[in-house]
Amino acid sequence: MARFVKVAAAQMGPVQRSEDRASVVKRLVRMMQEAHGWGCDIVVFPELALTTFFPRWLIEDEDELDSYYETAMPNTDVQPLFDEAKKLGIGFCLGYCEIVHENGRKRRFNTSITVDKSGEIIGKYRKIHMPGNSEVWDKPAQHLEKRYFEIGDLGFPVFEGFGGKLGMAICNDRRWPETYRCMGLQGVEMVMIGYNTPVGIDYNFDHDVLASFHNHLVLQAGAHQNSTWVVAVAKCGIEESSKMIGQSCIIAPSGEIVAMSSTLGDEVIVHKCDLDAGLSYKEDLFNLGLHRRPEHYGLIVETAGPVTPQK
Amino acid sequence: MARFVKVAAAQMGPVQRSEDRASVVKRLVRMMQEAHGWGCDIVVFPELALTTFFPRWLIEDEDELDSYYETAMPNTDVQPLFDEAKKLGIGFCLGYCEIVHENGRKRRFNTSITVDKSGEIIGKYRKIHMPGNSEVWDKPAQHLEKRYFEIGDLGFPVFEGFGGKLGMAICNDRRWPETYRCMGLQGVEMVMIGYNTPVGIDYNFDHDVLASFHNHLVLQAGAHQNSTWVVAVAKCGIEESSKMIGQSCIIAPSGEIVAMSSTLGDEVIVHKCDLDAGLSYKEDLFNLGLHRRPEHYGLIVETAGPVTPQK
Repeated sequence: MARFVKVAAAQMGPVQRSEDRASVVKRLVRMMQEAHGWGCDIVVFPELALTTFFPRWLIEDEDELDSYYETAMPNTDVQPLFDEAKKLGIGFCLGYCEIVHENGRKRRFNTSITVDKSGEIIGKYRKIHMPGNSEVWDKPAQHLEKRYFEIGDLGFPVFEGFGGKLGMAICNDRRWPETYRCMGLQGVEMVMIGYNTPVGIDYNFDHDVLASFHNHLVLQAGAHQNSTWVVAVAKCGIEESSKMIGQSCIIAPSGEIVAMSSTLGDEVIVHKCDLDAGLSYKEDLFNLGLHRRPEHYGLIVETAGPVTPQK
Repeated sequence: MARFVKVAAAQMGPVQRSEDRASVVKRLVRMMQEAHGWGCDIVVFPELALTTFFPRWLIEDEDELDSYYETAMPNTDVQPLFDEAKKLGIGFCLGYCEIVHENGRKRRFNTSITVDKSGEIIGKYRKIHMPGNSEVWDKPAQHLEKRYFEIGDLGFPVFEGFGGKLGMAICNDRRWPETYRCMGLQGVEMVMIGYNTPVGIDYNFDHDVLASFHNHLVLQAGAHQNSTWVVAVAKCGIEESSKMIGQSCIIAPSGEIVAMSSTLGDEVIVHKCDLDAGLSYKEDLFNLGLHRRPEHYGLIVETAGPVTPQK
């Protein structure tokens, strides 16, 4: 038995501050066309794909800040991507910044959507694990995601699409085993993840030299431990003097990397993924229902951070 | 700042059915002496170190089955190991099978203890993630751990010892991110893990060829995601025609393997571990209290196995 989905990971090179959405969307459309040329069913774009990664700056002007967010999806700028997808009959996954107005309050989220081959949005996720700070810290580089985004309020949804069970995560989410497990417990078969991962942010050189190793380690473990495909896609290269890692990859439910980008620019990599490839693990080694012991996992939900060990 | 502990991982070659405990303990003592020669503070032995890995057989005779368990620790057979440890002033971690009588009931556990330099038992753990089956299955090789052991009832204890916060896990426990996280949330700094990992058990050749890769993947991810040292020690080689993987290793809080065995026999590997090496991660990238979102992790404790996704 096999259920194949042909997937493209469309890595992006940098988006400089001066580049407008129309230009970015053209780049996305070009990669979508390349993915279609490979015969792909779906193409996965990075986190925060439409603009430069603005949380690296303190932006105090509200209008300037708002200019990085979308108030509707699709919208005039992004419509060409939806149109092209529908024309070609290819789905896509896209990360962007979202403003919604609820009860007179402006809410900001770091969001990802999955769109099917007919142009319909079939899945939406809002980033839960927000890295960085909410206040400016005493170092030359900032990472102000906690300032610019609320914690996602949609949980870790798993939804039907492309003949399987799909999920999404965004950037820092991928470092936390809870992310994959919450989807694994819903039987997820493919997790699509976009990221912008700068190095040099926290000035731990020993962390920086391991950034690409850590990127793959957490992705591969998440795939293996939940018997799911993982498609992880970077925006990378040197963006406004910030250096961001690449090594976008497609990972099998075995945890093996089966495709990886070889540049730090716009680049499409592809793989024909059998959504049944995780079955032999799900039935045996990682038969969650047979082997997990939730009665011993209480701490995981009882506390965010360390508690004093009980002797 | 640095808090060094010199650790030895004492990998064991096979223990055949015919080998008695006195002989096995002599092998352990020899490796303990070698570890002491390296100046080590503690030596870690594998899971189920004192006998052959009997869950590969269906044993219906109660007396024969009982012969693989210890009813006291220490006991006459194991006393020489405790004596040597006290004489040398070195601690150790040891896996064995335990029978306890409680309320007129005989209870069996797959257990691990940590002993300090004075010979006192300072930590005890009973294996929680039991692999295999409770009934014989229709394949030539068996793995009857679920038949021969109850699920551990001590949780995932973290305890003080050797100047740091220590924890233990046993074999299949290491494949589950919940194991490390439950200890990470108690601030663990070193997790000691013994394993007996046969290949060819479930007759998935595609799993077998990846057995060593998976071994390291889950150990490295567990270390990295919880900023802790992991010491993982195999009983390996060909034991009663069962082929068991080696590659015992010591893993830094960065997730890097810093020492690894190079044989499938009795072998001591060592590393000088700085218990503060995880601090820079614990304060930043993996500051659990700052970044985790337990309010979204409910599923992890609400169900053992997959539930239907909520659309």
